[in-house]
Amino acid sequence: MDQALLEKVFSTKDFKEWGNMLITELSVHLKNTTQGHNPKTINWNTPEKEFAFWKDFLENGKEQDFFEEVLKRTTHTHHPNYVGHQVAATAPLTALTAMVSAILNNGMAVYEMGMAPSAIEQVVTDKICHKIGYDEHSGGFLTSGGTLANLTALLSARKAKVVHDVWNQGHNGPLGIMVSEEAHYCVDRAAKIMGLGTKGIIKIPSDNNYSMDVTQLESYFNNAKSEGIEIFAIVGSAPSTATGSYDKLHTIAKFAKVKNIWFHVDGAHGGAAIYSKKYKSILEGIKEADSVVIDGHKMMLMPTITTALLFKNKRHAQHTFSQKADYLLDENENDWFNSGKKTFECTKSMMSLHWYLLFKLYGEALFDAFVTRQYDLAQEFARMLQEHNDFELAVRPMSNIVCFRYVGDQLEPGQLNDLNIKIRQTLLEDGAFYLVQTKLKGVHYLRTSLMNPFTTRVHLSQLLEKIKHVALLAIS
Amino acid sequence: MDQALLEKVFSTKDFKEWGNMLITELSVHLKNTTQGHNPKTINWNTPEKEFAFWKDFLENGKEQDFFEEVLKRTTHTHHPNYVGHQVAATAPLTALTAMVSAILNNGMAVYEMGMAPSAIEQVVTDKICHKIGYDEHSGGFLTSGGTLANLTALLSARKAKVVHDVWNQGHNGPLGIMVSEEAHYCVDRAAKIMGLGTKGIIKIPSDNNYSMDVTQLESYFNNAKSEGIEIFAIVGSAPSTATGSYDKLHTIAKFAKVKNIWFHVDGAHGGAAIYSKKYKSILEGIKEADSVVIDGHKMMLMPTITTALLFKNKRHAQHTFSQKADYLLDENENDWFNSGKKTFECTKSMMSLHWYLLFKLYGEALFDAFVTRQYDLAQEFARMLQEHNDFELAVRPMSNIVCFRYVGDQLEPGQLNDLNIKIRQTLLEDGAFYLVQTKLKGVHYLRTSLMNPFTTRVHLSQLLEKIKHVALLAIS
Repeated sequence: MDQALLEKVFSTKDFKEWGNMLITELSVHLKNTTQGHNPKTINWNTPEKEFAFWKDFLENGKEQDFFEEVLKRTTHTHHPNYVGHQVAATAPLTALTAMVSAILNNGMAVYEMGMAPSAIEQVVTDKICHKIGYDEHSGGFLTSGGTLANLTALLSARKAKVVHDVWNQGHNGPLGIMVSEEAHYCVDRAAKIMGLGTKGIIKIPSDNNYSMDVTQLESYFNNAKSEGIEIFAIVGSAPSTATGSYDKLHTIAKFAKVKNIWFHVDGAHGGAAIYSKKYKSILEGIKEADSVVIDGHKMMLMPTITTALLFKNKRHAQHTFSQKADYLLDENENDWFNSGKKTFECTKSMMSLHWYLLFKLYGEALFDAFVTRQYDLAQEFARMLQEHNDFELAVRPMSNIVCFRYVGDQLEPGQLNDLNIKIRQTLLEDGAFYLVQTKLKGVHYLRTSLMNPFTTRVHLSQLLEKIKHVALLAIS
Repeated sequence: MDQALLEKVFSTKDFKEWGNMLITELSVHLKNTTQGHNPKTINWNTPEKEFAFWKDFLENGKEQDFFEEVLKRTTHTHHPNYVGHQVAATAPLTALTAMVSAILNNGMAVYEMGMAPSAIEQVVTDKICHKIGYDEHSGGFLTSGGTLANLTALLSARKAKVVHDVWNQGHNGPLGIMVSEEAHYCVDRAAKIMGLGTKGIIKIPSDNNYSMDVTQLESYFNNAKSEGIEIFAIVGSAPSTATGSYDKLHTIAKFAKVKNIWFHVDGAHGGAAIYSKKYKSILEGIKEADSVVIDGHKMMLMPTITTALLFKNKRHAQHTFSQKADYLLDENENDWFNSGKKTFECTKSMMSLHWYLLFKLYGEALFDAFVTRQYDLAQEFARMLQEHNDFELAVRPMSNIVCFRYVGDQLEPGQLNDLNIKIRQTLLEDGAFYLVQTKLKGVHYLRTSLMNPFTTRVHLSQLLEKIKHVALLAIS
């Protein structure tokens, strides 16, 4: 390697200069966004123009403008007008743990490649298990995202519950899982990766609250069984994605026990409510789950992607990917410190540092305060919407996700759908607020996730005014 | 949320203070490690003691000591005596892109949640496709790690090549893939997740260089076929994990074409050799592959985990996870800007920033220089070992991975294995060097990956002296 290039790339002087400059730049960004000084949450640009910009910048851009351009051309999760997708406005110090992980780059597959973060991961996951209500047989690990964690849990379920040894012997008959029709699409994806096909995903209809209609579990189970499908797992959503509705975990747990199938809770978004004294009762039954997923990068203020996968019986955490069939597993094997044996991925980031630092600096009180505040705010927003003649609430929120639509004019259903689509597109291009959209039983809704701890009823009130304004322009 | 806690967590003043302090701390760390001032590459501690330390630190540790303790208790990839697992000594500025990603936390699932990084990802993957030798029909994306990328490629293969629509209809018969017995374990893992079982993983024996023995492809294919297995893919390793041996991609490509099966190249480690003018010929045939995996965090100096998955035909990049069967796919659909449709994961980090910044600041010349330097060094190390009576080279290196063992005394094979195991454990606990180990056809070897651009023949010479010293103590 050319010595001059080597010195340039690994120059500690450059790192220090760029680093200090960036810390300043990000501090200003954080101040301007959290305090709402920036007029926009997103500076909308089309994909084509954005692509052209960066293609050109590679040749002609000034190096020192790189970070500034990235800041301008991203969506500002720290802005109180950010009420969009479910990612956290990160606690700023977790950007420092991300930087430490990136420099040290310990790959975590084996203990030697990450002594501190491996031990820390165990401390952190033990704490979460305890909070769930699991006993000393429990255990878990961190992995790269909720989709991967849900897939991993279903693989554990397949190993533990399917009579045939699919891992070693391969498929030999139709398998199935049960899940609410309102669950996150990644459960479908996991099942299809495993080769279950559409018929192996037993979709349970939702009730009026968009929670799984548990009165239908028995009949759906029996129907699938009569079609020769061996059901090995049921997934509870905590909550569902579109409306943020929690399934009745306690009831599902009982059902799973009777049928001797695996009970998995996808708490990627709202599993963090275990920390909320006020709202934790909504998760009643979670401690009966065989496995639970909780994302750090959604309701726990961490950067993407870091997810805790917790098991009631840590034996399953150890052996999902082992070559042995489940009945051969040794209860006493506890090679907890070698992450690569437990996680899907071989190399992963030192993500445990985020969790630990937040616990260390602020304690569980942080997550109690944050989840409670955001869920409270959603209740308040729902009341505001109900009191407002121009808006219709889709369903009473059970978390910090609120879906609603503008109904301010006497329009036909089809026209209302078109109007709300138009409102959302106008808001996106305007950029003062960032919210998203969803379709529920054919009806088009605006969708907000109240992810930002700086959002207050004042911002939400301004949002409704803005929507009304946009709607009136659209139909005039 | 308690206002005081909110202000504390999101204090820009705290972020700035901690941030500047950490930049200084990391600068010192980088200087001391890259220049080899630190006496140790790893300060070995047992898992139990490490766990006890961090459990106690959570209650009693001083906040301001956190990062210092993490630095002490991790393996120092930037130290020239680091010759261990295959993760990069990161180019320091990529720790800044990691920090930016962590603050902005744009989730990348849809274009709106990451305009700049989505466009940048397209620029970057187009560049890599071009370098592979693909034409304008190619395309790809970035995903969270090589294991996930290999799984994704095999899912693309299943969709494209298996006659039955497994994605929607589920498994209906035995499927198989062909792969060298020396391939990374994640290929096995992917196949077993998909439900292929052991019999669906057709392991091709390796030749004397630990490359796939391509003379046996035909007979293994026919045997599997006669057992009713539908083979849909063959995986070439570029290189294999244990010895870093490249498979003959050109020959495999021809075989795949004749059999009409998918050809995937796992170039997680050594795909980056496309940038080396001197060594790229070892990848001859790669442009015939239907898909190629290259890790950023191995030979491209980036932090974990970021992997490029490239497709000869970008249609496959778009539709692996779509509900449509392959034959229904529309050639013209090109929703390139919505990452979540293409990648396994829904939310991912803004990892494209690492790739782009390195291309922008240093150009492809960086990867040419780095790969060439490390592969050259491995050749030199191999010569040193061959000239040394006390050591035996396992196989002539084809990349920057070198396996060897100490044979300095007239010991029985079993005793030599025990001795080399003991040498490696002593070196680990000593910590001056960090290297790993592997077993090849029953023989225990010491294993080095020359990942660090500061490692020279002087360090390697000192390593051999150290091993000799340790060996003599062990047998005395």
